[in-house]
Amino acid sequence: MADTRFHVAGIGNAIVDVLVHADDTLLNQLGLTKGVMTLIDQATADSIYDQLPPGVECSGGSAANTIVGLASLGAKTAYVGKVKNDQLGQVFRHDIRSAGIAFDTASAEDGNSTARCFVLVTPDAQRTMLTYLGACVELTPDDVDEAVIAASAVTYLEGYLYDPPAAKRAFLAASSAAHNAGRLVSLSLSDPFCVDRHRVDFADLVANHVDILFANEAELCSLYQTDDFDAAIRASRGHCKVAAITRGALGSVVVSGDDTIVVGADSVDQVVDTTGAGDLYAAGFLYGFTQGRDLATCALLGGIAAGEVISHFGARPERPLAELAAAKLGVPSL
Amino acid sequence: MADTRFHVAGIGNAIVDVLVHADDTLLNQLGLTKGVMTLIDQATADSIYDQLPPGVECSGGSAANTIVGLASLGAKTAYVGKVKNDQLGQVFRHDIRSAGIAFDTASAEDGNSTARCFVLVTPDAQRTMLTYLGACVELTPDDVDEAVIAASAVTYLEGYLYDPPAAKRAFLAASSAAHNAGRLVSLSLSDPFCVDRHRVDFADLVANHVDILFANEAELCSLYQTDDFDAAIRASRGHCKVAAITRGALGSVVVSGDDTIVVGADSVDQVVDTTGAGDLYAAGFLYGFTQGRDLATCALLGGIAAGEVISHFGARPERPLAELAAAKLGVPSL
Repeated sequence: MADTRFHVAGIGNAIVDVLVHADDTLLNQLGLTKGVMTLIDQATADSIYDQLPPGVECSGGSAANTIVGLASLGAKTAYVGKVKNDQLGQVFRHDIRSAGIAFDTASAEDGNSTARCFVLVTPDAQRTMLTYLGACVELTPDDVDEAVIAASAVTYLEGYLYDPPAAKRAFLAASSAAHNAGRLVSLSLSDPFCVDRHRVDFADLVANHVDILFANEAELCSLYQTDDFDAAIRASRGHCKVAAITRGALGSVVVSGDDTIVVGADSVDQVVDTTGAGDLYAAGFLYGFTQGRDLATCALLGGIAAGEVISHFGARPERPLAELAAAKLGVPSL
Repeated sequence: MADTRFHVAGIGNAIVDVLVHADDTLLNQLGLTKGVMTLIDQATADSIYDQLPPGVECSGGSAANTIVGLASLGAKTAYVGKVKNDQLGQVFRHDIRSAGIAFDTASAEDGNSTARCFVLVTPDAQRTMLTYLGACVELTPDDVDEAVIAASAVTYLEGYLYDPPAAKRAFLAASSAAHNAGRLVSLSLSDPFCVDRHRVDFADLVANHVDILFANEAELCSLYQTDDFDAAIRASRGHCKVAAITRGALGSVVVSGDDTIVVGADSVDQVVDTTGAGDLYAAGFLYGFTQGRDLATCALLGGIAAGEVISHFGARPERPLAELAAAKLGVPSL
């Protein structure tokens, strides 16, 4: 096996979030279902933007948030994703590189603008998302540097990559490259409606290609088309090495071989915005995993990272997670 | 006098803020003096951006923040400022219009990009700013709609407008248009170093053209080149109808004719980021003033608006100021 230069390489849709406060009236007016991500085209994005209150722009993207969380914990990381060479693309690139992450995917020079996601945060801290994929549709297998994948202990892929068709091929190329190099592949199911859109593909992936699966309860139930969480857990057992299933305030359940590990959520003073909770859980979990920690500690680290990100507005950590984890668990740095 | 369509029209540098957390080490490394605003060119902006941690983008600009605060209090407002027709310019336009503000200044179609200000917030809640003026240098007297100025009870101008040469001419054109229509002119001195750059001009303005002056202690002392606050207050008396001087945690002092009104600061649980404190004080004060309130109430309203904006990251209010003011003072809506 080649040298491990990176603990985790992440591949995802490179997106700048526009965070706005919203109430249920605005969600109804826009015809939105609370808590889910809807794909929109440019014309819809423009029309909806006109109806939104003032916003704040932050770099986002599910796998990117996870990789930033891993970097904040002290992991060595790389990211692959497509922005355009425009102002928001430059912002995205600055933010991910300034977190110490290797990010060398070439920007698109023309075509669609850098992707944007309108994140409508309601007073109950739920987020409802509208994504214009923009330049993300330009990500192709050519953007996947096999040397980076081969040098990464885990390649982490977000399910949302199945939405842009060429990115799906990049996803599969990265997955093959990782396994050919004797590495592990991790997948986040992203969203129950994303699972609906790609259920057959995802079921095949989980059964045959994924080593470490991340999902929340709704996504896992959607994957196995059941309302019964215990049935979904049973179905997932044996399909991949490790499945880490998050349950919000109930914490998480980790299934591995015959083991089932249940870990409570980290205590949080005030839940402000749940955006990025799943992304950061994956960050904490994979940090522990690539450090050779036991699965219960991986789940605790996931809970600590998720707890930080839901305590404030926005999907990336505001406090250095390494310090937070060290304070809570005594986890040493690399 | 024409109909009063607007309580306040603001003219300023239209800027998107990039908020980053910084420590004293980073300020020293960049050779910056804490608490002041420094003008930078495009090359310096690019070089400094490379050295900054991840950021969050928010619409800003001193007078724009004031106008947004006034709108949040319930005032009818207009804004004049120059962005480019690029992504950040569209963000700026969206945010100000979505606050209910009339904003019809044409975007520049080419030339410099929309202005950006790097706001480095240190753990002591102080902000240190680096401004690339970008498209703001394209603001000219042609952008000042005299009908809007004539229909505004107060025209509010930020001192920073004296930095781009053509904007200075726009400032003077707006000031003349306001007085020709029998309206009032208000000026914020913006920054002690801005006062240094334009002291002779500002002294003439304050003595001969400004009706309502906003400054903090350092700016007023810089204007009159004294270390003695009482001497600066004496010098300002009689130079304009009203001078409202802010003193941070000490509150503010309002000088008008023979009167001197001292008002304490609003209580704030935690000061997170002082960016926008002066801008929002002016918003609260002018709201009271255009509602015909007594000067002490104007100063209290200034303190309430400033107290809200320093309790969180960013220079624009997060809570509806009308509700906050009503709860604290029982101020009725328009």
